[in-house]
Amino acid sequence: MKLNHIIKAQQFDRKSLDDIFLVASQMEKIALKGGSNILHGKTMATIFYEPSTRTRLSFEAAMLKLGGELISTENAREFSSTAKGESLEDTIRIVGSYADVIVLRHFESGAAERAAKVSPVPVINAGDGPGQHPTQALLDIYTIKKEIGKLDGISIAMVGDLANSRTVRSLAYLLTKYNNIKVYFVAPDVVRMRGDIKNYLTKHNVFFAEETDLKKVSSQVDVIYQTRIQKERFGENLDDFEKAKDKYIIDKDILKVMKKNAIIMHPLPRVNEISIEVDSDPRAAYFRQAQNGLYIRMALLKMILVG
Amino acid sequence: MKLNHIIKAQQFDRKSLDDIFLVASQMEKIALKGGSNILHGKTMATIFYEPSTRTRLSFEAAMLKLGGELISTENAREFSSTAKGESLEDTIRIVGSYADVIVLRHFESGAAERAAKVSPVPVINAGDGPGQHPTQALLDIYTIKKEIGKLDGISIAMVGDLANSRTVRSLAYLLTKYNNIKVYFVAPDVVRMRGDIKNYLTKHNVFFAEETDLKKVSSQVDVIYQTRIQKERFGENLDDFEKAKDKYIIDKDILKVMKKNAIIMHPLPRVNEISIEVDSDPRAAYFRQAQNGLYIRMALLKMILVG
Amino acid sequence: MKLNHIIKAQQFDRKSLDDIFLVASQMEKIALKGGSNILHGKTMATIFYEPSTRTRLSFEAAMLKLGGELISTENAREFSSTAKGESLEDTIRIVGSYADVIVLRHFESGAAERAAKVSPVPVINAGDGPGQHPTQALLDIYTIKKEIGKLDGISIAMVGDLANSRTVRSLAYLLTKYNNIKVYFVAPDVVRMRGDIKNYLTKHNVFFAEETDLKKVSSQVDVIYQTRIQKERFGENLDDFEKAKDKYIIDKDILKVMKKNAIIMHPLPRVNEISIEVDSDPRAAYFRQAQNGLYIRMALLKMILVG
Repeated sequence: MKLNHIIKAQQFDRKSLDDIFLVASQMEKIALKGGSNILHGKTMATIFYEPSTRTRLSFEAAMLKLGGELISTENAREFSSTAKGESLEDTIRIVGSYADVIVLRHFESGAAERAAKVSPVPVINAGDGPGQHPTQALLDIYTIKKEIGKLDGISIAMVGDLANSRTVRSLAYLLTKYNNIKVYFVAPDVVRMRGDIKNYLTKHNVFFAEETDLKKVSSQVDVIYQTRIQKERFGENLDDFEKAKDKYIIDKDILKVMKKNAIIMHPLPRVNEISIEVDSDPRAAYFRQAQNGLYIRMALLKMILVG
Repeated sequence: MKLNHIIKAQQFDRKSLDDIFLVASQMEKIALKGGSNILHGKTMATIFYEPSTRTRLSFEAAMLKLGGELISTENAREFSSTAKGESLEDTIRIVGSYADVIVLRHFESGAAERAAKVSPVPVINAGDGPGQHPTQALLDIYTIKKEIGKLDGISIAMVGDLANSRTVRSLAYLLTKYNNIKVYFVAPDVVRMRGDIKNYLTKHNVFFAEETDLKKVSSQVDVIYQTRIQKERFGENLDDFEKAKDKYIIDKDILKVMKKNAIIMHPLPRVNEISIEVDSDPRAAYFRQAQNGLYIRMALLKMILVG
Repeated sequence: MKLNHIIKAQQFDRKSLDDIFLVASQMEKIALKGGSNILHGKTMATIFYEPSTRTRLSFEAAMLKLGGELISTENAREFSSTAKGESLEDTIRIVGSYADVIVLRHFESGAAERAAKVSPVPVINAGDGPGQHPTQALLDIYTIKKEIGKLDGISIAMVGDLANSRTVRSLAYLLTKYNNIKVYFVAPDVVRMRGDIKNYLTKHNVFFAEETDLKKVSSQVDVIYQTRIQKERFGENLDDFEKAKDKYIIDKDILKVMKKNAIIMHPLPRVNEISIEVDSDPRAAYFRQAQNGLYIRMALLKMILVG
């Protein structure tokens, strides 16, 4: 299967997800052997209008592992022609004439879709503002499959800043592709999951419930997906932030009640919402999850550039 | 022909321009076939004291397409030892001991020439303040030759911020190498072409005229070279800027009067000075022009590093 | 010999220094021949929390000369997840899952050691705040050996901002590995060498003296190691800075009294503390010293990644 633009989680069906996961598992083996040369002569441009060193380095490492080349800008918003008034469309047209694939991070929802419309080469959305972050969703699903062994029938607690997390939104979209999923939202009042996602789950017959007792939920689910409370979204309301930030922490007490084969995930970066005492527990899957990002991105680049 | 430092448009004669254009057209074919490996083992340093993501990525893509390697800094002014008081000369001496060629962008006119004086390796001027931007001039001339089929005898309208555009200055220098050129300057009063360029054209027997009626001029010329009114040059005089910015716009009305085989060029970025309705007209050559920058830079790197 | 983390100058004994210098001299030959491919398929991450374009480019050029690949961030402090509250440890764990070696520059003393504790791959300290800069110390010692022909028995004047220079501190540690070293400190009063280094030298039986007459000292030593007075360390006390800055300048008068085979070193950047009239004297070794940094870093990367 050859892929083109990667804009949003919903664009994938179960079949194409299976294909991507198969290629990703091949990529794990290639990475272990030190990489390959199948993207020799191909150039990836990373155009980041807002900083995300981690995501950028993950894409760049994936491209290099497959023998490809990079051109890159870490802060397109401040430094590129954007500051002089150039439209995203013009920037993409130009960069698309230099590169074989563009990885775009932007601060506006819908930017990746606008870019794809004019780009002469495939565009990968690496996060567009409050919109989507589809490669994160793919690596999340891939991690669940690898760790739990299946996707149908799993139960997952989404915890933390559900209102503002692009990550849990994209993940929720992807989970609707699977059967008998149970989703539990555990969020401080000020950052509860928004209606659009709840409606989407309802429409796709996915069970969900809003819960307040993290300990109880933690004892029942296969996956705890923790997220950081995003201070930058609270503006002046720092009181609200302070209250929200310490409400749901994953620590040793949560570990005690969790199922033996359950896992803890987190899109990272984490601040205090997972205690570092948890890191050494085998159920702490978040660093393995980050590593899976490398394999998923290698798979996508291969499927886009050589099919 | 082996090239060394590339500092200003005037350094090239007709013969060397022909050589560069011949190599550039070979580079187009190489780029289409996915690149080559002739610069394997060579390293290019891009040292940019002021941001220009587009120019930097164009040089970097050119180097990669020929199999070379990159070291790069996007904002040398703020982050390098310059902030600690180091001279440009010292920086160039050091970087020149790491790299095989230095691409320099600087905020001061004459910086590239100063760098070339001490550099152990060739220096390419990628814009020095209000000074020159010779690779842009080369790609502009190359574009005219490709699109119009000749350079002798052409007529060109230079439109917009002629006082501050490094690009039109460098282009004017290069046009004097050709015969029977006619140049029309169409600029808002506050940003008219400066005397030094007019004197240079006079001295080299190039016809020029200052015009105010863009429509009339557009109906007569082979090339309309539009430029952005550079807000950053107006300081406090935002009234002047506002008046200048909307004075000469290329839109459908201009398309209607243009000759069938004429073209519209622009060094980009553009803001509103070319309406996007113009983009789909085959005479809109500005995105092809940007692409030509890749081939010209590939040609220069080859001619500098391997001859 | 295979190396692992490179954290501080003291970690090396005389034998391992000899090994590194032997490999570095092989690297000089490889660099002259245009590089090699022994690090093909290996990726180096440069994670810089404070800017140091020179050091970063030196490491990157070294990696490229050996056929390796790069992922890089120039300003991790401002742009990475650090701004969102992520710990250095988490960042290193993630980046270590993408790269084969991490080059870390950080603003806090001890950061490299903390990173090494959690990193899945070797960490090279490229400067940690007021702490250490071990690769600079290695290239300094290597330069002395190459230029003077020996290390035992040499006399060295350390001049300038001895209180704040990470470089002279690391160099002092390394000098204790050799016999009959004589060290002269020549510093403005406000930035005299600190007690910890003096105690370390005393403990290791290295002769040192504090002097005030640069001319007299210059006539006696094999090496003058000049450093920049670091304005940024003076805070509000700009009077103190102004007085310190012009106190000890290396100029033609110093050249006149220096021994014929002595050398002048400087970690660069320099401002006014070495007059540019000195540059053309064969005893001015500072640009050769910078070039040696490339060979030392090539050697370290080879010894870390392939042994």
